[in-house]
Amino acid sequence: MSAAKQVYIAIIGAGGVGKCFLSQLEALAARRPNPRLTLCYISTSKKALYNKDYTLDASSLLQDLAASTEAPLPLPRIVEYLSGAPSKVVLVDNTSSQDVADSYPAFLSRGISIVTPNKKAFSGSYQLWQDIFAAAANSGAKVYHESSVGAGLPVISTLKDLVDTGDEVTKIEGVFSGTMSFLFNSFAPVEGSGGKWSAEVKKAKELGYTEPDPRDDLNGLDVARKLTILARLAGLPVESPTSFPVQSLIPKELESVSSGDEFLQRLPEFDSQMEETKMAAQNECKVVRFVGSIDMATKVVKVGLEKFDRSHPIAALKGSDNIISFYTKRYGSNPLIIQGAGAGGEVTAMGVTSDLLKVLSQMS
Amino acid sequence: MSAAKQVYIAIIGAGGVGKCFLSQLEALAARRPNPRLTLCYISTSKKALYNKDYTLDASSLLQDLAASTEAPLPLPRIVEYLSGAPSKVVLVDNTSSQDVADSYPAFLSRGISIVTPNKKAFSGSYQLWQDIFAAAANSGAKVYHESSVGAGLPVISTLKDLVDTGDEVTKIEGVFSGTMSFLFNSFAPVEGSGGKWSAEVKKAKELGYTEPDPRDDLNGLDVARKLTILARLAGLPVESPTSFPVQSLIPKELESVSSGDEFLQRLPEFDSQMEETKMAAQNECKVVRFVGSIDMATKVVKVGLEKFDRSHPIAALKGSDNIISFYTKRYGSNPLIIQGAGAGGEVTAMGVTSDLLKVLSQMS
Repeated sequence: MSAAKQVYIAIIGAGGVGKCFLSQLEALAARRPNPRLTLCYISTSKKALYNKDYTLDASSLLQDLAASTEAPLPLPRIVEYLSGAPSKVVLVDNTSSQDVADSYPAFLSRGISIVTPNKKAFSGSYQLWQDIFAAAANSGAKVYHESSVGAGLPVISTLKDLVDTGDEVTKIEGVFSGTMSFLFNSFAPVEGSGGKWSAEVKKAKELGYTEPDPRDDLNGLDVARKLTILARLAGLPVESPTSFPVQSLIPKELESVSSGDEFLQRLPEFDSQMEETKMAAQNECKVVRFVGSIDMATKVVKVGLEKFDRSHPIAALKGSDNIISFYTKRYGSNPLIIQGAGAGGEVTAMGVTSDLLKVLSQMS
Repeated sequence: MSAAKQVYIAIIGAGGVGKCFLSQLEALAARRPNPRLTLCYISTSKKALYNKDYTLDASSLLQDLAASTEAPLPLPRIVEYLSGAPSKVVLVDNTSSQDVADSYPAFLSRGISIVTPNKKAFSGSYQLWQDIFAAAANSGAKVYHESSVGAGLPVISTLKDLVDTGDEVTKIEGVFSGTMSFLFNSFAPVEGSGGKWSAEVKKAKELGYTEPDPRDDLNGLDVARKLTILARLAGLPVESPTSFPVQSLIPKELESVSSGDEFLQRLPEFDSQMEETKMAAQNECKVVRFVGSIDMATKVVKVGLEKFDRSHPIAALKGSDNIISFYTKRYGSNPLIIQGAGAGGEVTAMGVTSDLLKVLSQMS
């Protein structure tokens, strides 16, 4: 047996997902001594821990980080710092920051691999997407982002496997937002009549299923970002998440109200619109759902409300689950379907940890 | 850019899956010049192609193989031959042979990686399972077998990711046989009354959904093998596919009739038994399905008939699709579900090709 190899880990972000990832990383390092994982940098938006010899005492990491007097390094300085590490480095970006995403090409071109749930890098401009994968191809550094769609569900890896083995994806369709899933499964259930739209939105917010301002879920942009990622992986060079039709569920009149609270207060005025949509579906024995779809033949990507038969898997979804259906040449008329929780700290961190394992397995 | 690396590929088996794999391999080699894939051995049960310089002219491979006057090498000789290759080797076992499976430890211990849809190696004796993974760990050779459960569906990779990232699997449940899926979706559909049992078995055979002798599907052993593999991956050291309860759907009186045809001819005599089972479920507003399940807490693995609510995803399955539900600590009450075609040459070969890509990505 040769001595254990050493791999350095740098982490940006220690919020909900970041904390879950840290505890998964600690357990992983305890279970698998090879390669030896050494944390050499960790930061929040305000604080950082790092030092010249690239080792941190991890005994009380989060406390030490909170107590740190160091500000995070500027991104170009992090690139420099990590490039000087005595062995290979994996950067774990547990933020949703566009700035961090924009610097991926700089990290990758210096041979630093990246694993992340951050959607911004892969759903921003198509130029950034190209720069990221060109930098990785040139340096041999790896970049994995399973949790950028459906959290820990094997969505991205499955799509990549389909494409890489030569299958032809014809259509991708699904419910890509835990918030939207919860809202419509309650508002327009397969059995029973469901609640009023504004009441369901209020309930979802109280249960912590929405962003602090629910409009950040209802504008559809989160789903559009996920669709952008999947469309690009399937081979459509989608320019940006705003370059295709995305239906917003925010009434025009409430787009510019100053706060989420005011939005929620005035939302009941618009319940009749959503009720009409629900009834229109009901009259066809269907239910309404907020879905995203990619049609590869027509190159049409869209996000918005659609009607589904009550027996359709998308209609039968439960709780805040996601469902993603891949229609391909090989799978024929019955799609390959993946379903389950698509949000939450632990399952999102799991996708990141699993990506880290893939990167480690390819480090010689 | 350095010169393309070279990896040698040896293939045993050129039947339904083997032929699909060959065409996927050819397309793969054309798309990805690095590493350069060189076929150095291919055999059926009767014929083989190989030569001293480890290259085959692949221009008309299947014709050349059919015309070959060489018999396949005995397995120990194949190990020797491949060990002498001037670069790394991946063995693709596209058979369902127990003999080939039994020699995996010999291949692996010589550094030869293996990708295969062959269930026999992973669902045979627990000793063979241990020998296989010990040999791989010692030599660093890789062994992947995604298509041994659910064909190309990402079942094994998902279970491994759950376990490797530290999730706790509590239960696995599903429909693991395309034949059983088709039979019960037709015999006891969610809507309508379905056909007679013997008529459905006959129809399934005519459509090519059963083995030549349908008893090879109805005895439940195929499902038991798949459960054995998943249970072991989840951490239960199951001794063999016959070491837990497996319900056979072959009436005792027909176990020893001499042919599949005679079996099908006499099966109508036993329709009333299956009709009773269907009615018992119907009286509870349920449908009957042939499922396998693994309960990690009680360590109970079983295969047989169970009743499900009509709205349950297992009840709502279509055609000959498989469905696999992973219940875990992280995913809570709503399982992670994977669904789709679990049999067929192209999708089975896809799992093998995808495994090959994983092995190649780890070859430095």
